[in-house]
Amino acid sequence: MSKSEQILPNKDHFLYSFLNPKSIAIFGANNNLMSTMGSMQLRNIRAGKGIQEIYPIHPRLEIIQGYKAYKSVFDVPVIPDFAFLILPPKAVIEVMEECGQKGIKRLLITSGGFREIGTEGIELSNKLDQIAKKYNMRFIGPNCLGIYNAWYRYPEKKEAFINTFWPYMIPKRGNISIISQSGTIAAQTFWHAKEIGVKISKSISVGNERNIDLVDFLEYFKDDGYTQVIGLYIEEIKRGKEFIDMTKKITPKKPIVAMYAGGTKAASRSIMSHTGSLGANEKIVKAVFDSSGIISTNSIMDFLHYLRTLSFAQEYNIFPKGNKVGIVTDSGGSGSMMAKTAELYGLSVPEFSRELKNTIFEIIPPTASANNPIDVTFDVNFVNLLYKLPKLVMKSGEVDAIIVYGVFDFDEVLDTMEQSGMILDEKMKGINLMIERAVLKPIKRLMKKFSIPVYYAGPLPYKYPWFQKFISHDIPIFELWDLPTKNLNILCNYARYRRERLNNST
Amino acid sequence: MSKSEQILPNKDHFLYSFLNPKSIAIFGANNNLMSTMGSMQLRNIRAGKGIQEIYPIHPRLEIIQGYKAYKSVFDVPVIPDFAFLILPPKAVIEVMEECGQKGIKRLLITSGGFREIGTEGIELSNKLDQIAKKYNMRFIGPNCLGIYNAWYRYPEKKEAFINTFWPYMIPKRGNISIISQSGTIAAQTFWHAKEIGVKISKSISVGNERNIDLVDFLEYFKDDGYTQVIGLYIEEIKRGKEFIDMTKKITPKKPIVAMYAGGTKAASRSIMSHTGSLGANEKIVKAVFDSSGIISTNSIMDFLHYLRTLSFAQEYNIFPKGNKVGIVTDSGGSGSMMAKTAELYGLSVPEFSRELKNTIFEIIPPTASANNPIDVTFDVNFVNLLYKLPKLVMKSGEVDAIIVYGVFDFDEVLDTMEQSGMILDEKMKGINLMIERAVLKPIKRLMKKFSIPVYYAGPLPYKYPWFQKFISHDIPIFELWDLPTKNLNILCNYARYRRERLNNST
Repeated sequence: MSKSEQILPNKDHFLYSFLNPKSIAIFGANNNLMSTMGSMQLRNIRAGKGIQEIYPIHPRLEIIQGYKAYKSVFDVPVIPDFAFLILPPKAVIEVMEECGQKGIKRLLITSGGFREIGTEGIELSNKLDQIAKKYNMRFIGPNCLGIYNAWYRYPEKKEAFINTFWPYMIPKRGNISIISQSGTIAAQTFWHAKEIGVKISKSISVGNERNIDLVDFLEYFKDDGYTQVIGLYIEEIKRGKEFIDMTKKITPKKPIVAMYAGGTKAASRSIMSHTGSLGANEKIVKAVFDSSGIISTNSIMDFLHYLRTLSFAQEYNIFPKGNKVGIVTDSGGSGSMMAKTAELYGLSVPEFSRELKNTIFEIIPPTASANNPIDVTFDVNFVNLLYKLPKLVMKSGEVDAIIVYGVFDFDEVLDTMEQSGMILDEKMKGINLMIERAVLKPIKRLMKKFSIPVYYAGPLPYKYPWFQKFISHDIPIFELWDLPTKNLNILCNYARYRRERLNNST
Repeated sequence: MSKSEQILPNKDHFLYSFLNPKSIAIFGANNNLMSTMGSMQLRNIRAGKGIQEIYPIHPRLEIIQGYKAYKSVFDVPVIPDFAFLILPPKAVIEVMEECGQKGIKRLLITSGGFREIGTEGIELSNKLDQIAKKYNMRFIGPNCLGIYNAWYRYPEKKEAFINTFWPYMIPKRGNISIISQSGTIAAQTFWHAKEIGVKISKSISVGNERNIDLVDFLEYFKDDGYTQVIGLYIEEIKRGKEFIDMTKKITPKKPIVAMYAGGTKAASRSIMSHTGSLGANEKIVKAVFDSSGIISTNSIMDFLHYLRTLSFAQEYNIFPKGNKVGIVTDSGGSGSMMAKTAELYGLSVPEFSRELKNTIFEIIPPTASANNPIDVTFDVNFVNLLYKLPKLVMKSGEVDAIIVYGVFDFDEVLDTMEQSGMILDEKMKGINLMIERAVLKPIKRLMKKFSIPVYYAGPLPYKYPWFQKFISHDIPIFELWDLPTKNLNILCNYARYRRERLNNST
């Protein structure tokens, strides 16, 4: 999102009020946080902080998690914006009727036990429809986890609306919105999202989609200023034509990454008992995705990384102009494997011009190689590796994107030196500060200036402080060397698609 | 390796003395640990602890890293077993000649600047050959990183011989040996290996293979009791016929996983400047791998996981008898995605018999599903999910392997409950101890009894203490749900190959 425009949510859409309720009634929570999902969800909502007015409904308890509880929704002194129903399926029907009478128009029904369990569940689902129609209500679910909105009402307050996950472990907020027919994908992926730096705007578990479906949410996200990338987990596409029309409109401006769970025998059986839907043929769904410009994968780790890759490109408007990649490495093996996989994915790793090679030779050791990949071999000049060489290659105009392998943890490097008996002078101790100043900040500026992404990689797990430092500066970094080429390929393909569509539309 | 047999290294092979030297001369180390690779390597050797007699050679220094230094190898009072040469290429020639005169028979030449730099380097390489021939010497390298042997001389002492990597960060020792034409793959993968639980026996960087090549090391590992799985990183196969003959002999008993870096234009260019070899056509190499039963991949993360998968199977002799997989999950989405990818890989996810389903229904919640996948949905009975259900499925005889999704960090679960204001009783506080006793130990026994592997997975990164707990019990655990099906497929394929080859040979 461009910094000059004011960012606005999609306030005119009916889903805005689902994502930003002021007051809620909650059915199914108690004080034993371990015993029911409702109790956990209330705990999450509390910890998210945004919502001030919370009205738990319970037949016996007086106080629930610090809030005054009511015997019935009719006892609540106001008409809440929103009701949460986490009850056995038959109780859902009764309570929904009462909510209707009370005048509540928006519901989240997390309870399972509907369509996915067979005939009896389908009858119960029909009752949900009837009550919703009678009182002009809309609802998310049933059989879902719920809602996370990182940009609740007044973004400057940094409060969230979240019932799905424990808020102290959520990733940073950002421009990625997820719509998922699985609660796990909407919530349990947050541990990795946080570690990898996948910054979430909203994450919605839509469940059986009896009343509100993913097309509704796509429509919301299309015009939501806080959403620039969309992730989908799909077991069923209910409104095929609308889905295609909507995603075709979205993808030229906001990339969509999707996982489709169906398409095999056991997967279809699993889906039937999960959300009660009929999984469609893999080829049909793939054709739908391709025709709409949707990027698809069967890997959850790739899904998370692709979202991060596109989120970065969107946030800083850094899109490669072609598919030529320059590789800079301090290790021949990783350089060779990256060159190989880049070419297998369809990227090009062109040999550098004689002129560029000569400039490179001036700052690398004599045994190093100035071809593409540039392999500095053993060289402790980290600023050359991480900044000066990528800068030379950027300025040459010979590539559209760069991968640099060789990020270590500079704190660990210092620790190791000290542990092995070396006395460090002040200059050495300042290596990490120096890298932050002389590498991270200026490379980000250059990326924006040239519209050339620079992807970093190294041998460490993401957990290491220096990987987290790159992530905190919003600089794409990857564990080892499998992912940079794969992600760059996704980005280059999307950049081309985007160019073509935006050109056609003008 | 079966616990009843005595484990012995391959003492009769000439490489035994390379892996287990008693005394070494080292050329190229000084006291500035940051300035030269030689200094770092001496530091590593020191920290590895095994080798007691170390003789640094240096024209000026008196003491190097605490050891008395000698002006020339002729001044050293004994004939060292082994010499380390980390010098500029021309100095290597001189020093090698002196080592020959001194009577040293084994060398490690880590220096680059030979074949990989072109004509002049090839001439220098020829000189290495001549000197080696003249004095009947053998050498590893040049242009390599060196040696790691986790089982140095007297395994009970837990000392290592390592020059490649900082020993305080090495993974646990185990039954996996790596032969690599890249130092990075031999050493820099150790951070992830440690985190994932990839237990290394030896890791050798062979460089340009001027005198000793990967076939020599394959020959050693074939009869090494401390090696049950072999990993290869290949840029060039020098002795094709010997490679095929040797690997064909090895793979029925010890699986081999390989990465081949060549096969594309830029990769070949990269390889030429890395080790100076000519990368062969990808198809030819793939055909060689297939005919020898070698498992191959282009992904370093898959490489590490496959090694771990096969290491576990070999250590405990747990090989699935077919390719039928049972899936147990607490999340429908991950269950569907695992069912799908399992089938895409060629595994089978059969529907359970009515009888088995009825037994399962007795211990799962009413909204849960007893098909394969079993989806317990929301259920806080972790012992059911992690132990009782897998046990029921194991005993049924209906599957050959099991995947269980839903491992959390039980310490984090307790922390979260406490942070959210819940008072924990003693029983709850004991949940983690209980899981260790009631899940981890008994499931391992059952796996061995039925020869059915049980793979666990969960939404957390490996760094979490409970993932590390599973790893410390040597129970296969995976981040999220991409890897279990992929690895199970590798294992089932290898188990079939092994059965067929061992049956044919008897």
